[in-house]
Amino acid sequence: MSKHVVILGGGIGGLATAYNLRKLDSSLRITVVSGRPYFGFTPSYPHLALGWRKFEDISIPLANLLPKHGIDFVNEDGESIDPDANKVKTKGGKVIEYDYLVIATGPKLVFGAEGQEQYSTSVCTAEHAMELNKRLEEFYRNPGPVVIGAIPGVSCFGPAYEFAFMLHYELKRRGLRHRVPITYITSEPYVGHLGLGGVGYSRRIMEDLFAERSIKYIANVKITKVEPDKVIYEDLEGKTYEVPAKLSMIMPRFMGTDVVASAGDKVANPANKMVIVNRCFQNPTYKNIFGVGVVTAIPPVEQTPIPTGAPKTGMMIEQMAMAVAHNIVNDIRNNPDRYAPELAAICIADMGKDAAFFYAAPVLPPRATVIQKKGVIWHYAKSAFEKYFLWKIKAGNIAPVFEEKALHLVFGTQGIRLCADCSGAPGTC
Amino acid sequence: MSKHVVILGGGIGGLATAYNLRKLDSSLRITVVSGRPYFGFTPSYPHLALGWRKFEDISIPLANLLPKHGIDFVNEDGESIDPDANKVKTKGGKVIEYDYLVIATGPKLVFGAEGQEQYSTSVCTAEHAMELNKRLEEFYRNPGPVVIGAIPGVSCFGPAYEFAFMLHYELKRRGLRHRVPITYITSEPYVGHLGLGGVGYSRRIMEDLFAERSIKYIANVKITKVEPDKVIYEDLEGKTYEVPAKLSMIMPRFMGTDVVASAGDKVANPANKMVIVNRCFQNPTYKNIFGVGVVTAIPPVEQTPIPTGAPKTGMMIEQMAMAVAHNIVNDIRNNPDRYAPELAAICIADMGKDAAFFYAAPVLPPRATVIQKKGVIWHYAKSAFEKYFLWKIKAGNIAPVFEEKALHLVFGTQGIRLCADCSGAPGTC
Amino acid sequence: MSKHVVILGGGIGGLATAYNLRKLDSSLRITVVSGRPYFGFTPSYPHLALGWRKFEDISIPLANLLPKHGIDFVNEDGESIDPDANKVKTKGGKVIEYDYLVIATGPKLVFGAEGQEQYSTSVCTAEHAMELNKRLEEFYRNPGPVVIGAIPGVSCFGPAYEFAFMLHYELKRRGLRHRVPITYITSEPYVGHLGLGGVGYSRRIMEDLFAERSIKYIANVKITKVEPDKVIYEDLEGKTYEVPAKLSMIMPRFMGTDVVASAGDKVANPANKMVIVNRCFQNPTYKNIFGVGVVTAIPPVEQTPIPTGAPKTGMMIEQMAMAVAHNIVNDIRNNPDRYAPELAAICIADMGKDAAFFYAAPVLPPRATVIQKKGVIWHYAKSAFEKYFLWKIKAGNIAPVFEEKALHLVFGTQGIRLCADCSGAPGTC
Repeated sequence: MSKHVVILGGGIGGLATAYNLRKLDSSLRITVVSGRPYFGFTPSYPHLALGWRKFEDISIPLANLLPKHGIDFVNEDGESIDPDANKVKTKGGKVIEYDYLVIATGPKLVFGAEGQEQYSTSVCTAEHAMELNKRLEEFYRNPGPVVIGAIPGVSCFGPAYEFAFMLHYELKRRGLRHRVPITYITSEPYVGHLGLGGVGYSRRIMEDLFAERSIKYIANVKITKVEPDKVIYEDLEGKTYEVPAKLSMIMPRFMGTDVVASAGDKVANPANKMVIVNRCFQNPTYKNIFGVGVVTAIPPVEQTPIPTGAPKTGMMIEQMAMAVAHNIVNDIRNNPDRYAPELAAICIADMGKDAAFFYAAPVLPPRATVIQKKGVIWHYAKSAFEKYFLWKIKAGNIAPVFEEKALHLVFGTQGIRLCADCSGAPGTC
Repeated sequence: MSKHVVILGGGIGGLATAYNLRKLDSSLRITVVSGRPYFGFTPSYPHLALGWRKFEDISIPLANLLPKHGIDFVNEDGESIDPDANKVKTKGGKVIEYDYLVIATGPKLVFGAEGQEQYSTSVCTAEHAMELNKRLEEFYRNPGPVVIGAIPGVSCFGPAYEFAFMLHYELKRRGLRHRVPITYITSEPYVGHLGLGGVGYSRRIMEDLFAERSIKYIANVKITKVEPDKVIYEDLEGKTYEVPAKLSMIMPRFMGTDVVASAGDKVANPANKMVIVNRCFQNPTYKNIFGVGVVTAIPPVEQTPIPTGAPKTGMMIEQMAMAVAHNIVNDIRNNPDRYAPELAAICIADMGKDAAFFYAAPVLPPRATVIQKKGVIWHYAKSAFEKYFLWKIKAGNIAPVFEEKALHLVFGTQGIRLCADCSGAPGTC
Repeated sequence: MSKHVVILGGGIGGLATAYNLRKLDSSLRITVVSGRPYFGFTPSYPHLALGWRKFEDISIPLANLLPKHGIDFVNEDGESIDPDANKVKTKGGKVIEYDYLVIATGPKLVFGAEGQEQYSTSVCTAEHAMELNKRLEEFYRNPGPVVIGAIPGVSCFGPAYEFAFMLHYELKRRGLRHRVPITYITSEPYVGHLGLGGVGYSRRIMEDLFAERSIKYIANVKITKVEPDKVIYEDLEGKTYEVPAKLSMIMPRFMGTDVVASAGDKVANPANKMVIVNRCFQNPTYKNIFGVGVVTAIPPVEQTPIPTGAPKTGMMIEQMAMAVAHNIVNDIRNNPDRYAPELAAICIADMGKDAAFFYAAPVLPPRATVIQKKGVIWHYAKSAFEKYFLWKIKAGNIAPVFEEKALHLVFGTQGIRLCADCSGAPGTC
């Protein structure tokens, strides 16, 4: 009888794994378990917040799509995992047995600053982005100061920069920019750190982009409290400061979801409940459990005075999904080859009419390749990529050959690498 | 009987106001009162100092010009203003009654450092620039170290940078550059601050321009004394230092002229004797008194460790003049519309064969638009603008429609804005 | 009888002096004394280390070459100089009388850090570079961390940067870069100082180049010890740190050779045994002794917290050689004209497929001209220059007219200048 792979999560990581598996082995039984009835293109949530995209533009309903590609879809969130019994229980009470489990739920958002969840909002989910869009419409009628920021422990800084740049652009378009002081407040030790220790001279690039846009920045501080009209932060000496804010967008930090936590300390990292994986993104204890995406535990690039984490960008997640799919199929086929993702990261920060582009391969230093660019072309590249990715999801073809070839040609990207020894924390193999 | 507008000052602010008024209302009686018999194009005084321009190239006699455009000219400095009696007395003893008074005298120069007036010189007046030119001719025969700088309280830094760059170029042309150490010493907290808190990444641009030209810079200090062979400055801790200087060009700070002071504390800001104005550049107490140009009291962009002021550049002054002209004519016509200048600033720092270009709109943050460029084109743009501006003065057409359109098209400049509430310090309306 | 000029040294300085002399005066007797049987193109030694050049590609045997151009060649190192008797003794025991002596031996290398000579290697001699090449071949099979650096007192930093950039390129080409952390550790107060106080904004350029290449840098420290698996350095407070290093390339500092020291304190600077020369590169005590190249004592550009020296680059050495040749020939002919080298420096740091270019004229500030560029063109320029220079050495034509004209046209380079007063330390005349 064919093996059953259960995938928790219907985002980039979950679907990329499902599609890769389907491509590698047409007889495999694959089930995607996700409470959200749609796939949403996360990188465009800042655009959703600004009203530059509609929800329908950047999401795809899964109910019909997945079966069409031979993948079962259970539209419920996972509630618990019993790794010893190889079973997942859903919130609706279904019990699903698996031969292999791929955890790709995405993160649980942690609003670590007092009042953050209530008075601020984020661009991490479609719901948050749409709420922010509503608040913005009101804000435009009666503008005032804005704070954009990230609390301690954040690993996803890119959207905060992007939102700052895009909001500047939108305010200018509306003739309101000169009435809106914008301040960027971050736990990064310097702007352009990005949780990555910088990407080439990203510090200089971000400083220049902020300076050109008259956006003030305050780095190396902890946002401790959000109030309806201000944001409060603390410096390294514990001194507190206030910045007026009629509107704020403060990024939360990420931890593992409750369903990961339910699997116990051998699956969930006790510190942050993220999935413990080795270099090949396999759990070291339960060899039939794998992790993909933001929910996996990856070490930070470097210690920072205020904690920050390494981002997991779309390209990294696609590479994880491909490695995991190969590793599962090879395990089934008794092929000893195991793969590790290269963990190369592309990040395009849209700025309205142009964009900043960063490429780091591998993300965890020493890096072989670092590229940073700025230009109109990257703005269009980002839009084009959104369309292309949604096409890939609809077509069920997550890793077309031409994409692999193009990436290798342009950036030298390898995607995944044969890994002789998978043991150890994710990183270079 | 038609109203009488008296304008103190025959510089950019005074003439721009006069011409705007004449264009808006052909029946108005307009009198320009100025001791200087000519209009001088201030931005080219550094060029005058270096002998790149002759005085005749950048000045226009006013005696025949103004009457030709229907404007009376009294070639005497104002001595006192009696704002309660609506009268101005000139140094020659004439008493002139006015319905509206526009104060556009330009600044009184304050040489705050000991020996500054005697041993250093400036490029703030045509006389100073020509004196500097004489000193330079002697200096070329026997060169030595040069100090270019700005004392505490200066608001006009642009010409100091420009003079440093242009002197470098001239010395190189003469094969003398390697014998002349040049040091720039400033009260700005960092180079490129410009009294503006920087314009985009002007700090980096200025640092690079100085580095490329082998010009040393010392920022965040107070020049306290100028001697025939050295300049003495003090750091924030009060420690003093000497820099050898065979020649020095140290910018003075500006305050209001004595004729402003004579009008009393309701017209002259007690702190610096500049004209107190609201957002529409009208005096809040005497509603028929207006201020235009460098003599108006504008708050600094930000507090700096050593005091600096916000510059009032040509474009800002032209916008003030246009707003004031509209406000006077509307007052006469009982039209309630009042205008505030946008206070957008263009600054082109000539460097001999290329130039640095900065645009900030509005000057007082938050800024909607910031542009910084460097290139040969801006050197020619500056020369072309000089010719164009002198043509405007001769033609009596200070704000041609095509200029307004072009500025709006290229930079989004608005010039003046309808202002619902003129109260408060000059700035965004 | 025709005068006899003896030249100690067969490198760039020695041969350039010999060829210039031969061109200026065909009757002169010229003898080159050098223990090395070949001319080696020093700037390509980093390329030799990486295996990008073979020794034969960048060296020329002297035994047949020099006689062909009418120059005697004694293939022995000098042992001692008796400046009062106008005699040089060679290691082989030959005693050579001279009318004029030109000291162009190049430096003696000083490995000031414990274990530096044993566990590290340099690119300062062909032998070192070839040894490094052997170590690299082994290193590629089993890579690990690399340290590239410079101890206190170094004056030649360029090849360290170049080697770092080129090693990055080579490792990437071999697919090994992501396994090799590279750290640059230097006595310069900041990267891009180059012993020159920077060249324009070389600091920013070097910071960016390192950031783009994922190379860490630690500046303003003293490397005190090299061990087989680590490099130990000390900060200004005397605190010590370790950096793991499976391979290290640490630049030594330079001092005068023993043969210079043998001439006594009036020829050899007591501090560093380099040749004491005036602005015209003539010894002030023994007027018939001249110095050319790295062995001459030139003051540092500026005091640095940890000592560094001013580099003497190829162009500077060619200019010294030309000035010295003119000065000797004019002395013989009783022509009172004396020349000083302009001391303009070109530095091209190769990076594999592109290169960084710096030009400073004169090297000792104030500088009239500073240029910094980055681009593919400079990579080819460097290769082309290598070929061109080797052709010049073979052809015996060290200063072709077209070269002089081209340099003057492109950079305004003067080469040498008539110097009314030769007294004083080398520098601007």
